[in-house]
Amino acid sequence: MDSRVHEHAAVLVEWSARIEPGDAVVVDVAEDAHDLAVAVAEKLGEVGANPVFTYGSDETMRAYLTAHDGEFADADHELALVENADAYLRLGGGRNTTATADVSDETRQAYAKARNPAREARMDTDWVSTVHPTRSLAQQAGMAYEEYCEFAYNAVLRDWESLAGEMAKLKTILDEGSEVRLVKERENQPATDLTMSIEGRTAVNSAASVAYDSHNLPSGEVFTAPYDTEGQVFFDVPMTINARRVRNVQLAFEAGEVVDFAAEQGEGVLEAVLDTDEGARRLGELGVGMNRGIDRFTDNILFDEKMGDTVHLAVGRAYDANLPDGETGNQSAVHVDMITDMSVASRMEVDGEVVQRGGRFRWEDGFEE
Amino acid sequence: MDSRVHEHAAVLVEWSARIEPGDAVVVDVAEDAHDLAVAVAEKLGEVGANPVFTYGSDETMRAYLTAHDGEFADADHELALVENADAYLRLGGGRNTTATADVSDETRQAYAKARNPAREARMDTDWVSTVHPTRSLAQQAGMAYEEYCEFAYNAVLRDWESLAGEMAKLKTILDEGSEVRLVKERENQPATDLTMSIEGRTAVNSAASVAYDSHNLPSGEVFTAPYDTEGQVFFDVPMTINARRVRNVQLAFEAGEVVDFAAEQGEGVLEAVLDTDEGARRLGELGVGMNRGIDRFTDNILFDEKMGDTVHLAVGRAYDANLPDGETGNQSAVHVDMITDMSVASRMEVDGEVVQRGGRFRWEDGFEE
Repeated sequence: MDSRVHEHAAVLVEWSARIEPGDAVVVDVAEDAHDLAVAVAEKLGEVGANPVFTYGSDETMRAYLTAHDGEFADADHELALVENADAYLRLGGGRNTTATADVSDETRQAYAKARNPAREARMDTDWVSTVHPTRSLAQQAGMAYEEYCEFAYNAVLRDWESLAGEMAKLKTILDEGSEVRLVKERENQPATDLTMSIEGRTAVNSAASVAYDSHNLPSGEVFTAPYDTEGQVFFDVPMTINARRVRNVQLAFEAGEVVDFAAEQGEGVLEAVLDTDEGARRLGELGVGMNRGIDRFTDNILFDEKMGDTVHLAVGRAYDANLPDGETGNQSAVHVDMITDMSVASRMEVDGEVVQRGGRFRWEDGFEE
Repeated sequence: MDSRVHEHAAVLVEWSARIEPGDAVVVDVAEDAHDLAVAVAEKLGEVGANPVFTYGSDETMRAYLTAHDGEFADADHELALVENADAYLRLGGGRNTTATADVSDETRQAYAKARNPAREARMDTDWVSTVHPTRSLAQQAGMAYEEYCEFAYNAVLRDWESLAGEMAKLKTILDEGSEVRLVKERENQPATDLTMSIEGRTAVNSAASVAYDSHNLPSGEVFTAPYDTEGQVFFDVPMTINARRVRNVQLAFEAGEVVDFAAEQGEGVLEAVLDTDEGARRLGELGVGMNRGIDRFTDNILFDEKMGDTVHLAVGRAYDANLPDGETGNQSAVHVDMITDMSVASRMEVDGEVVQRGGRFRWEDGFEE
């Protein structure tokens, strides 16, 4: 086995999930993530944790959902499993990133609602989501398999402690700020000018570890939970939502809610997401990608949203880590991220001061006020 | 996908497990059982059941166990999952039937003990164990892959209702009987002459359905829970126990307990099994194979023990279905089957009357009193 698979497992178990002896762990294994599952199992054995392995197969899920009449009951056994777990490790990496493309939006939403208690319980654990590089992910990225492995491990096997120090600077600015404004003016695309309140919210320094309230590996972003969003935004980074391609999304907000939307491709998917529930039309996340180890878009949100010089916004559920104790933020059964490139002709302001312009932060060489 | 995979899934879900709308189901998927998992998922969707898929990977388990120090804690999350399930479907079919061969017996036993509550809870569900034909199983059977698929589906896709009628005859004899005696006298092997009490025990007509207290697919055996075993028995059918080969086992019993044992191959594995706990030296099962659709030994207990004209005995745990209500039979963390060929120079007596001789039952043509 490629030694990087073992390094990946070590980062996941030790740095990211901080697994301790005796921890009850659920490891969810995608169809082609077997090698990573074996390496993670070995690491969990070394630590002395107690794993249960679940089979997170898109093809199996697609077969189940397409055959079902759409009236789903509670799944108490899944809930009980997760409620009794200390940590939940998702090892993505299937055989076909569009394996569930023909599942109807109604069925998808009904299932998500029925399984929402288990999802909420998962998010109360020390959960971490990662992916094992597969041929299917390489294909989605338009890359050779070996090339993709190189890309993925470059993003995952980083000096996380050092990146955490860099990201702390932006966290401080956002924690002390009240309002964020994103502005983009590019010739061949709709203008972006979006204002959000972040008053009272706490930014997360997402350094790929639950110790930082960060639940993705790779990570490398600073995110918070905005509200009272006003204006319009254009997402120019291609993406896959619910196994379908979506391109060039425009959203218009008034009083915190999406009042108009459009997409050049996949508008139906976007509409279904926005119609899931009330919270699906409000933002749950503003994230700033700062992982410059990720050097290209690969049509995979786990990597794309962390790329340096991008900003992403998610409609749907907000993360508790961004909220004051006891306060509930935006609630929804969905959390769907969309990304915009901030590397040229763009700026991010906090309380009227420019923090990032054309892909340079104010503390970096080359920044122009 | 081979249409027989869908037929297999239909028999499993409908005939064997009797899954009903809303049932909470755990589906445990071995490494190469993916296609069957997809077909089962589709069938569960049609029925309207609620599945959770677990990943029953031998390679993952081996990595975990070999890295662990051997002091296992409780696994409350696995227990909670199974306690909240109505049914448990095991889809076997890995990549290497000896994938856990280098796990030490101590570790194996310690893990089995730690996970025993979950095992007990599994056995309180409508559980069914089956296998998807894989190249690894074909290899173990010494067969080509396509040939093995033919063999496996011949055993699984049967007229179960008709076989149940045939097996009911033997069940009646065993239910009414008090003592079973097995006798084999073959030239080149140690003699078998074993007596067991079955007084007060109820035989199971194992017709591959939970409706018959039968939990294997394929099945096709009648089994009960013997005690007060006396005498000696020779098992001439090759087998794999805990991923290691075991051949030509001899056991000697006094007052229900194994007092002497030997094996031409794998004696250490046998010894470890017998030393697991007190109940591991007593019999938990006497089974009579009656599935003549299984026409050869394939070194897989699920099939071998069901083959017509064989008898198997298991050391370890007895099944509740054989016991009077409220009575606990033999208790153990293990249940290990061993098989003896009854097709020639052999007979089975119940209370002194010959029931089977040289592979013919008393109700069959060609039977000699």
